[in-house]
Amino acid sequence: MKVVIVGGGAGGISTASNIRKIDKNIEITVLTRDNNVAYSPCAIPYVLAGKIKSFDDIIMKKPEDYKEKDIDVITEAEVTSVDSNKKAVTYVKEGKEIKLDYDKLVLATGGNPFIPPMNGSDLEGVFQIRNIKDGIKVQEWAKDSKNAIVIGAGLIGIEIAFGLKKLGLNVTITEMLPQIVPRSLDKDMADILTNYLELEGINVVLGQPITDLNGEEKVKSACFGDGTCIDADMVILATGVRPELELAKMAGCEIGRWAILVNERMETSVEDVYAVGDCVESQDLILGANTISHLGTTAVRQSKTLARTITGRKSKFNPVLNSMVSKVGKLEFGAVGLTTSFAQQNNIKPVVEKVEALTRARYYPNAKPMDIKVICDADGRIIGCQIIAEERVAERIDTMTLAITEGLTCFDLSNMEFAYAPPVSMVTDPLVIAVEEVSKKFN
Amino acid sequence: MKVVIVGGGAGGISTASNIRKIDKNIEITVLTRDNNVAYSPCAIPYVLAGKIKSFDDIIMKKPEDYKEKDIDVITEAEVTSVDSNKKAVTYVKEGKEIKLDYDKLVLATGGNPFIPPMNGSDLEGVFQIRNIKDGIKVQEWAKDSKNAIVIGAGLIGIEIAFGLKKLGLNVTITEMLPQIVPRSLDKDMADILTNYLELEGINVVLGQPITDLNGEEKVKSACFGDGTCIDADMVILATGVRPELELAKMAGCEIGRWAILVNERMETSVEDVYAVGDCVESQDLILGANTISHLGTTAVRQSKTLARTITGRKSKFNPVLNSMVSKVGKLEFGAVGLTTSFAQQNNIKPVVEKVEALTRARYYPNAKPMDIKVICDADGRIIGCQIIAEERVAERIDTMTLAITEGLTCFDLSNMEFAYAPPVSMVTDPLVIAVEEVSKKFN
Repeated sequence: MKVVIVGGGAGGISTASNIRKIDKNIEITVLTRDNNVAYSPCAIPYVLAGKIKSFDDIIMKKPEDYKEKDIDVITEAEVTSVDSNKKAVTYVKEGKEIKLDYDKLVLATGGNPFIPPMNGSDLEGVFQIRNIKDGIKVQEWAKDSKNAIVIGAGLIGIEIAFGLKKLGLNVTITEMLPQIVPRSLDKDMADILTNYLELEGINVVLGQPITDLNGEEKVKSACFGDGTCIDADMVILATGVRPELELAKMAGCEIGRWAILVNERMETSVEDVYAVGDCVESQDLILGANTISHLGTTAVRQSKTLARTITGRKSKFNPVLNSMVSKVGKLEFGAVGLTTSFAQQNNIKPVVEKVEALTRARYYPNAKPMDIKVICDADGRIIGCQIIAEERVAERIDTMTLAITEGLTCFDLSNMEFAYAPPVSMVTDPLVIAVEEVSKKFN
Repeated sequence: MKVVIVGGGAGGISTASNIRKIDKNIEITVLTRDNNVAYSPCAIPYVLAGKIKSFDDIIMKKPEDYKEKDIDVITEAEVTSVDSNKKAVTYVKEGKEIKLDYDKLVLATGGNPFIPPMNGSDLEGVFQIRNIKDGIKVQEWAKDSKNAIVIGAGLIGIEIAFGLKKLGLNVTITEMLPQIVPRSLDKDMADILTNYLELEGINVVLGQPITDLNGEEKVKSACFGDGTCIDADMVILATGVRPELELAKMAGCEIGRWAILVNERMETSVEDVYAVGDCVESQDLILGANTISHLGTTAVRQSKTLARTITGRKSKFNPVLNSMVSKVGKLEFGAVGLTTSFAQQNNIKPVVEKVEALTRARYYPNAKPMDIKVICDADGRIIGCQIIAEERVAERIDTMTLAITEGLTCFDLSNMEFAYAPPVSMVTDPLVIAVEEVSKKFN
C-alpha cells in the first residue's frame, strides 16, 4: 500500500511515524513545501526570546533522518493538484512537475496566516510567522530595528511580543478586541496577563484595529482607524490562521463551516482521502457542535487515530476541549473548555467564580499567587477553567480537562483527593478552593 | 448545642473551623495536650532543613486567634476519661481535673509514635517527632551533634534525614525492609530516591533493623542485629504511628483492625460520638476493604464531612486512594493507589510499565527527567501511579487520582487531551507516554 501525506507539520509527520510504528511495509511519502519537518513551531517565540539558543535546537529530526524509518520525506515540494478518481497528486519541486500515485491520501495541509483588511501589509519589514524560515527572518530584521508592532494578541502574538521585547526592542501589541487571548481567557483573567506584559515594558493597545501600515518599501509606522500612528521598523501579523483547503476542494472533500469535515476515524467524505490537523474540524466536547482546534496536541492525537484507521484497526478520535497552556516570561497560563462569554453565546447560563490561592503552603518560601476561574453550567457541571500563576498551571489544567471530560460537577470535585506537601501545594488544593467557592453559588 | 473536640491536629481543629463556617451558634471546645494548634506537622522537616526559617512560621493560627471565631481552644489539656452515657469528658490542665459536658463528642486523637522492640530507646538523644516541641528539641540537640541516625525510611524518615544532613551532620537512615518509602513506592522507583539520598551524602542501610541503642544517659551508638554498630550522637525514631484509641475504647466505640470504625458520615458506633483523622479507618477505593490513611489531607476532608454531619446536613466521605507527594532536596515524588506488591498481596495481577520522560520539551532548557510507573489491573483499569522528577509531579498525581477515581483504563487515558507548551510539558505528556506503554502489554 502507498500512503501519500501532504504536509510535514505535526499532523503530517506524526501520521507518517505512527503508521510506521504499526506497519513496516506500507510505502509512506511526505510532501512538504517547507525545507524542514519535525520541528516545533510553538517553540519559535522562545528562540526569539533567547530562552532556546538557536532554531537548530527545535528541529527534532532532519528530513533525511526519516530514511531510517523508511519514510520518504520530500521537502520544498508544492502539491499543485489532486485527482481523487485516478488516485494521484502532482507536485512541483525545483521547477519540475512530478506525478505520484497513492492508495491512501492524507491531507495535513494546515493553515495559512490570515491577513485582515489592511493597507501596506506587503511592505518590507512586515512578517508572518509560519515556520523557522520566518523566525530567522524576524530575528535578522530585529537586529537593525528599534520599534516593533505585533498585531493580534492571541497566544502567538503575546509570545512573539515578549520575545521581541527580550531582544531589546520597543514593542507594542495591538488587538481589535477589548482583551488579549480572547479565545481562551475571560477578560478579568486576561487583564492579569495584560498587567504583567505592561510591567515587562510592553505597550498593549486594546479595542482598536490597525488599518494602515505606512512606509516606502520598508514599513515605517502603523496607524489605527482614528488616524493615530505608532513608529514601527517591523510589524508582525499574528492575526490567526485559516485552514488551507484548496487541495481538499480539488479532491472533492466536503467542507464544513471552517474546514474539512472528517468523521471520528479521520476519514473525509472522499474514499481513501483522510485529513488531520489545522485543516479539519473537530467536535466540541461540551457543545457537541463542530469547532476548530488549532493545537499541535490535537494534530498529534489525530495522527494516532488516523494511523490506526489506515492500518485497518479500530480507531476513534474523541471530541475536544481545546486545553491549552503557555508561558510568557514568568507567567504560566492555561485554559480548558468554554470561556464565560462563549458559554453565553451558546445559550449556557454560566455560574462562575474566581479565587486567588497560592502555589505552595502559605509559610513556604516562594509561594506564588495562583488565580483560578471555574465556569459551571446551571447544574453545576464544570465547563471551563482558567489558571494563571508562576508555576504548576499546566497539570492543573489537565486535571480539569479530565474532570470536564468525565462530566464532573463542582460538588464532585470538591470531595476529590489531592496530593499535598508544603513545598508543592496547599493543604486544600487551589482547584478545590475554587470549586468549593463556585459550589456556594448553588446553595 | 455543645461540641467537644479532643485533639488539636488537622482533623480536630479543621472540624471546629468547618462547623463554625456553617453554624454561628454551636458551642465549640477543642481540647489538646499540645501547646499549639493549627500548625503544619508536615512542615517540621523543612524547618530543620532550613527551607523554612523558623517553627513560628508554620503556626497558621495561635490558640487565642480562635477566640475571634468563638472557638474555645484549651491547650495542654490531657483528656483522661470519657463517659458516653453521661455525655461528659474529664481533662487535666495544670494539675486540676475538670469535667466537661457535651452534646456531641469528636475524637481526633491522632496517633502515637510506634517504637519497635529495641533496647535503649529511652536514652537521651533519642527522639520522636510528633510536634513542634519535638522539632525544637531535635534542632537544639543537633547543634552539638556530629552523627545522626534516622530509624525508618518512610516519608517522615527521609525528610528528617535530609533536614539533618542540611544541618551539617553525618546522617545514616536505616530501614528494616529492603527499600525506602515501602508504603507508597515500588522498589525500582524507591531506588531512584535512594540513589539521590546517597548522592546528597546520606548513608542508606536497607534490610536490617536496628536492635540496640547504646550509651550511658546519652545515646552513643546504634547497632544492628548482626552486632555491627554505627556511632550516633542522636537517633530519630521515624518508625510510624499507631492510632491513639484509649478514649475511643472508653467511650465504647467499635474498633476495627487498626483504628476506630466510622461510617461515611464519620459517626462511630456510639451515638453522638464522632471521629476523624489518624485515629479512624477509611475505606480503600480500589480494594473496598478498610485501610488507614495517615494524611493531613484526609483529616481535613473528613473534617468537612463531619462538620456537615454535626450540623445536620447531607454528608459523605468517599473512599480514599492515599494520594501523596513529598519533596526531598531537589526531588519531588508522589504516588497514588496501590503499589505492585500491595496489589499482588490483594490477589490483583498487576500489569505494570515504567517509563522515563521529560518535564519539558526535549530542546527546552532545564528539561528534567521524569520517571513514571503506571500499574493496571488485568482489565487495564489504572490502580496505581508513582512519579519522580525535579518538578511538576504533584499535579500529575492529582490527574491520576481523578483517573483512578473515575475508573479509567490505560486505553481511556491514552486518548485524553493534555495541555502543551514547550516550557512546561512535552507534546505527548509523560503520563500519556506511560499509559500508552502499559497499554501495549494488553495487545
